Amino acid sequence: MPSPPPVSLWPDPDALGPLTDLYELTMMAGYASEGMTETSATFELFVRTMPANRNYLVFAGLEQAIDGLARLRFSDDQIEWLRLHPMFSRIEASWFERLRSLRFTGDVWAVPEGTVMFPGEPMLRVRAPIDQAQWVETFLINALAYPTLAASKASRVVAAAAGRAVVEFGARRGHGPMAPFLAARSAYLAGFVGTSHAEAARRLGIPAMGTMAHSWVQSFEDERLAFAAFSRHFAGGVTLLVDTYDTIEGVRRAATIEPAVQAVRLDSGDLLQLSREARATLDALGRRSTRIFASGDLDERSIDRLVREGAPIDVFGVGTELITSRDAPAIGMVYKLVAVDGSGRIKLSTAKASLPLAKQVFRRRDSSGRFEGDVVALADEPEDGEPLLAPVMQAGRPVSCWPDLDAIRSRCASQVASLPDAIRGLDAAPPYPVQVSEALRLEASRIERRLRSLPSSPR
Amino acid sequence: MPSPPPVSLWPDPDALGPLTDLYELTMMAGYASEGMTETSATFELFVRTMPANRNYLVFAGLEQAIDGLARLRFSDDQIEWLRLHPMFSRIEASWFERLRSLRFTGDVWAVPEGTVMFPGEPMLRVRAPIDQAQWVETFLINALAYPTLAASKASRVVAAAAGRAVVEFGARRGHGPMAPFLAARSAYLAGFVGTSHAEAARRLGIPAMGTMAHSWVQSFEDERLAFAAFSRHFAGGVTLLVDTYDTIEGVRRAATIEPAVQAVRLDSGDLLQLSREARATLDALGRRSTRIFASGDLDERSIDRLVREGAPIDVFGVGTELITSRDAPAIGMVYKLVAVDGSGRIKLSTAKASLPLAKQVFRRRDSSGRFEGDVVALADEPEDGEPLLAPVMQAGRPVSCWPDLDAIRSRCASQVASLPDAIRGLDAAPPYPVQVSEALRLEASRIERRLRSLPSSPR
Repeated sequence: MPSPPPVSLWPDPDALGPLTDLYELTMMAGYASEGMTETSATFELFVRTMPANRNYLVFAGLEQAIDGLARLRFSDDQIEWLRLHPMFSRIEASWFERLRSLRFTGDVWAVPEGTVMFPGEPMLRVRAPIDQAQWVETFLINALAYPTLAASKASRVVAAAAGRAVVEFGARRGHGPMAPFLAARSAYLAGFVGTSHAEAARRLGIPAMGTMAHSWVQSFEDERLAFAAFSRHFAGGVTLLVDTYDTIEGVRRAATIEPAVQAVRLDSGDLLQLSREARATLDALGRRSTRIFASGDLDERSIDRLVREGAPIDVFGVGTELITSRDAPAIGMVYKLVAVDGSGRIKLSTAKASLPLAKQVFRRRDSSGRFEGDVVALADEPEDGEPLLAPVMQAGRPVSCWPDLDAIRSRCASQVASLPDAIRGLDAAPPYPVQVSEALRLEASRIERRLRSLPSSPR
Repeated sequence: MPSPPPVSLWPDPDALGPLTDLYELTMMAGYASEGMTETSATFELFVRTMPANRNYLVFAGLEQAIDGLARLRFSDDQIEWLRLHPMFSRIEASWFERLRSLRFTGDVWAVPEGTVMFPGEPMLRVRAPIDQAQWVETFLINALAYPTLAASKASRVVAAAAGRAVVEFGARRGHGPMAPFLAARSAYLAGFVGTSHAEAARRLGIPAMGTMAHSWVQSFEDERLAFAAFSRHFAGGVTLLVDTYDTIEGVRRAATIEPAVQAVRLDSGDLLQLSREARATLDALGRRSTRIFASGDLDERSIDRLVREGAPIDVFGVGTELITSRDAPAIGMVYKLVAVDGSGRIKLSTAKASLPLAKQVFRRRDSSGRFEGDVVALADEPEDGEPLLAPVMQAGRPVSCWPDLDAIRSRCASQVASLPDAIRGLDAAPPYPVQVSEALRLEASRIERRLRSLPSSPR
């Protein structure tokens, strides 16, 4: 008897309803069974602490998160699976029936993508019937945490490159087949010039860049033949990989190609030393216009070192370190209930306290235009500064105005340029000042006092 | 003028052709332009070195990788995008025409999923026309590296739990929306008992598990009402989260629920201390059957410590550490050309040398059945031991026999049980013995001598 063919795991983009933790679905059913689907809940998404080696975060991923919310629905198969799950055996048939037509109908506010953010500041706020607001928790954190992590890492790499070009190169090291799309987008919005991932480039409308692999060189009788063939077939933009056998020999061979190639690529060895030798070799052979492209486990630290030491490298390719955010591959992004029907909610557990009610972040600039500090306040408090959260979805519909990726990229560049110098640097800096408004603090204390006075269970 | 709605990045699973680095497509066009589409190439996939804190790898991801290869094709839009890309301006129209019907038609060998593997051992081998073999490089590494990384991490967590149950809990921390599917699968095949991700569980046919969030507790007037409501609506398997306000108070309240709940969940604080107090509290209140579930940034080290200290925890939830493989979020998996038309190829560059020709891995057992060492040999060499690579795709078609996930899980358990004790442990161990056969070594030397004797370019 033939076995089934291998199983595909690609989800149906029009049945993303259960791309979430089971407990969100359990709680949805629970809220419905309690008759609470008219109860309005407000949740906010933020990080509690900064990941290692980051002085600021670059918020990203909003566009795909909102696209996802607008597409959330359950297929018949998915509903049937839930119905048969033992946890759901007491849930009434009408709930499963309701799932068929269920859509996310809430309101969402968020800060624009490309905005620099800090711990304790809400990046996004959801107000929806409590079952729907709960439904989207895992989906939203998954959609926003990784793009934000990748953009935050990319921003440091761009800073280190100090004006030299950086290309995103990490597709093969991404965690699954969607990570390269998200990493390419986050890297570009943070200032990279393009990506090596062809389909991500096409879908995002950003430059796709590429050179050649060692296997191209090895599949010809010798390196010179491999270089000549490649240059014959490809027009502008030929970059030859020169380290398959002997790097500086490879540079010499590349320099003999007519017309002059755009770049040579170094992918191993001591990049400072090799780039200097390569530059000297190219110049001596009359190839002053041929640029030097370097790759090979580069991150912001090694790029910073190469730049400071004056390595004559024109373009950096950054792969693994960017796409995995290797030094900080996770961020403690949370989505917390802050109000039920307009009444504030908090959590008391140690080290995980939260502030109640819908909030706004106000960002203040000094006289030179630099950011000097933020205030987290109640959403309806009048405060000085630029309010960062704005509506992005109303009654389940995305707002009509979406910035394109280049506009987000410009915003990111301007945000990073407005940071205090120490925060923008690679080294650990004192935290950026984020205050909590007096009114918000009072409201939190009031709720905490009430919770602590509740009767406890009998001992 | 209204702006476009937010952009979705979900790819079409039937147009995965350009989910790869641009250079693979460039080289494809180059090989075709050189008239080399009848040239047969053999590539092998392996890791050069072990990632940090790993004594062995668990190979995973093959089923989805092969599903992907069988589905690789280009849509008209994708072909048009390539045609307009400046790099491709000299490529003949017939090549773009050919892309319309291009499918992967190669042969693939691989070790079974769940097999423990070591650096330098081919896990997968492709033999195909050189342009096709090149095409699939990025796709295959992306498809296999992350599942292998996650399964390898999961195997350590399972070892640390020493027989207690572990549930995969990381959906929100995954790098993009596909990572949770792959992590849930890898964790299960390495011995986890289930996942919190509803759709992954449904698609994989594995247990979906869940408890409740703090928001459920906070959305009721008090904790006791929240617990009572949850228990009323959900049948067997109720787990109450007890740390929203005061953990041990929460345990007492959970113990008053009738009928007795299946478990209480601790998600913060000192888990050793709290689990002991929780156990004592539950026992004192006649709830000996109520189990203790613990979560909160757990990894193999913290689980090992809790188990050794005798924490009365029955189930561990592991999220971030597993899904991001936090201590080693990347693995240097490579895909290297080893033969062209049957003739061996190697690379000479420092620290990245490779061995030529199609190879096989032979695994030997001692008299007690434990693995005592592997030999990497030429594919057609007679060697003692179990050969690990077998055909999984022939002429572009998956072989007809695919193990189900439970069979892979059994294989993994048996593989790990056969490892030498030190390799299976959490601490760094001397490397598992992997030898290179004499014939393979001789072949490598022969090719290296030939390459080094090639004339270099004029100085």
